[in-house]
Amino acid sequence: MSTTTKSPLSRPVKIACIQLLSGKDKPKNLLLAREKVLEAAQNKADIVVLPECFNSPYGCEWFDQYAEPIPPNSEREAGVVDEQKYPSFFAMRKMAIDAKVYLVAGSIPERSKSPPKYLYNTSLTFNPQGSLIGVHRKIHLFDIDIPGKIKFTESDVLSPGHTPTVINLPPYGSIGVQICYDIRFPELSAIYARKGAFAVVAPGAFNLTTGPLHWELLARGRATDNQVYVAMCSPARSADDVEGYKAWGESMVVDPMGKVLGKADGGKEGVVYAELKPEAIENTRAGIPVTMQRRWDVYPDVSAGVERGDGLDLLE
Amino acid sequence: MSTTTKSPLSRPVKIACIQLLSGKDKPKNLLLAREKVLEAAQNKADIVVLPECFNSPYGCEWFDQYAEPIPPNSEREAGVVDEQKYPSFFAMRKMAIDAKVYLVAGSIPERSKSPPKYLYNTSLTFNPQGSLIGVHRKIHLFDIDIPGKIKFTESDVLSPGHTPTVINLPPYGSIGVQICYDIRFPELSAIYARKGAFAVVAPGAFNLTTGPLHWELLARGRATDNQVYVAMCSPARSADDVEGYKAWGESMVVDPMGKVLGKADGGKEGVVYAELKPEAIENTRAGIPVTMQRRWDVYPDVSAGVERGDGLDLLE
Repeated sequence: MSTTTKSPLSRPVKIACIQLLSGKDKPKNLLLAREKVLEAAQNKADIVVLPECFNSPYGCEWFDQYAEPIPPNSEREAGVVDEQKYPSFFAMRKMAIDAKVYLVAGSIPERSKSPPKYLYNTSLTFNPQGSLIGVHRKIHLFDIDIPGKIKFTESDVLSPGHTPTVINLPPYGSIGVQICYDIRFPELSAIYARKGAFAVVAPGAFNLTTGPLHWELLARGRATDNQVYVAMCSPARSADDVEGYKAWGESMVVDPMGKVLGKADGGKEGVVYAELKPEAIENTRAGIPVTMQRRWDVYPDVSAGVERGDGLDLLE
Repeated sequence: MSTTTKSPLSRPVKIACIQLLSGKDKPKNLLLAREKVLEAAQNKADIVVLPECFNSPYGCEWFDQYAEPIPPNSEREAGVVDEQKYPSFFAMRKMAIDAKVYLVAGSIPERSKSPPKYLYNTSLTFNPQGSLIGVHRKIHLFDIDIPGKIKFTESDVLSPGHTPTVINLPPYGSIGVQICYDIRFPELSAIYARKGAFAVVAPGAFNLTTGPLHWELLARGRATDNQVYVAMCSPARSADDVEGYKAWGESMVVDPMGKVLGKADGGKEGVVYAELKPEAIENTRAGIPVTMQRRWDVYPDVSAGVERGDGLDLLE
């Protein structure tokens, strides 16, 4: 059996995960994100990741209030996006252009024309020219109830997405995007790796119950099983006297061997940087050749029959 | 959405993983295993697990020498098994009867009549009456090459199994058995949990390179993703001046939340005990209801179309 394998990452790339402290003031959230994205670019990041719901507080009661539509293709193509109508889109696009980075812009509540609930938890990715190149709508909504600890029911107000999302970032290669609870379902990361992604990028906001239990475990597990990089980007944890959802933090980047390359300091604001290297994937896959030893005669490939898509066809 | 779920474990059960120090003397290995199985039974274990290749040293150069055929059904049914011809089978069967336990008897090299290579890495499970109730042949052979660290090529001498193995242990419920490298392939554990197993039981012998990297990560990951118990049973680590494969050890039992319930002291000989509880699975699945939120409209179920079997039909 040959143990050679071509890396899905074609050249070294530096990634930054911004552990952002968002609050109730949307314009302030957008400004703060802009500052940090520019800072990451100054530190030579090529890909910058923002956290889940970075433009709003995280909570079912806020999604509708903070939701924005995504401008239609006609406006996006023309490069004239109405700042009043699409303030978050406008700001994200400008951040990517001014920082000259690929921006995996965490997620925002999206107001859609599509029923049933007209709201999605949506991640938009921009290229350094400001073009929208990928859209991921959270597929698995966060409906959890650990008695005495935490209860949260996203499906009360959000609609789920229906498509895995793999986005091409030339000249580096592709990333697969998922949002928070999505990462609990190993199928998505497997699909991303098997469709050629070099990294799974997951904006997410675990909490103080599930964070210590599973955040790092899931990041390292998905990396190890699929021999790809995993980048998880959390909001910073709000102060104790601030009401609302408390994010776990610990934004991190994990390498294809499951080793944590960099991690935020608990819930504190900060930026985590990591250099992703083509040979790290190649060496891991050659050394522990699981990518070539799967037994499709014993069980099916979950990625077979799943189309690779960047989600742009979901939009107008 | 309903978040009630019936536990696949119908009553509490105590499991013991025996971290056994095997050597080159097969009768001595079998005697030592017997001692420890009886000790575990005295400590009220209901299910006792032995490590991978517990009757032999672990290594491609030993498999042929230590391999034994499994007695045909006619002899097994009659309860008269020739000790000279089937010394390990004879010993395992007697251990189960004398200890009155379910014995997941690690694995042994099996000499088969089936080509291509006539040797398998095989796990046999016995009930307290000494009947063979399950057979798992290692599906994913350990072919690994981490330059300067470890190289091992089981497929040089072994044939791989072809079937996932779920074994009924009345009145408790079912377990899924896999051997060592099998656990790197998340499909198997997913199949076991979805076919109704309350635990994944994995005799295995990770080494001093892959052990610290991945042994606990994989155990906790499979437990968390599938919300089942995971029991991993390793050989003890031989002394530094003994030649041959060095096992990592750290036999452990992990609960459905991914928490380590008990763990051996590094590579030292010892027995790890844990109480498995029906409500732990039920509460985990109700609290974080991933078992009900999978998106079969987005990706296929790897367990669909895979038949549940105990492997007995593989034998004569």
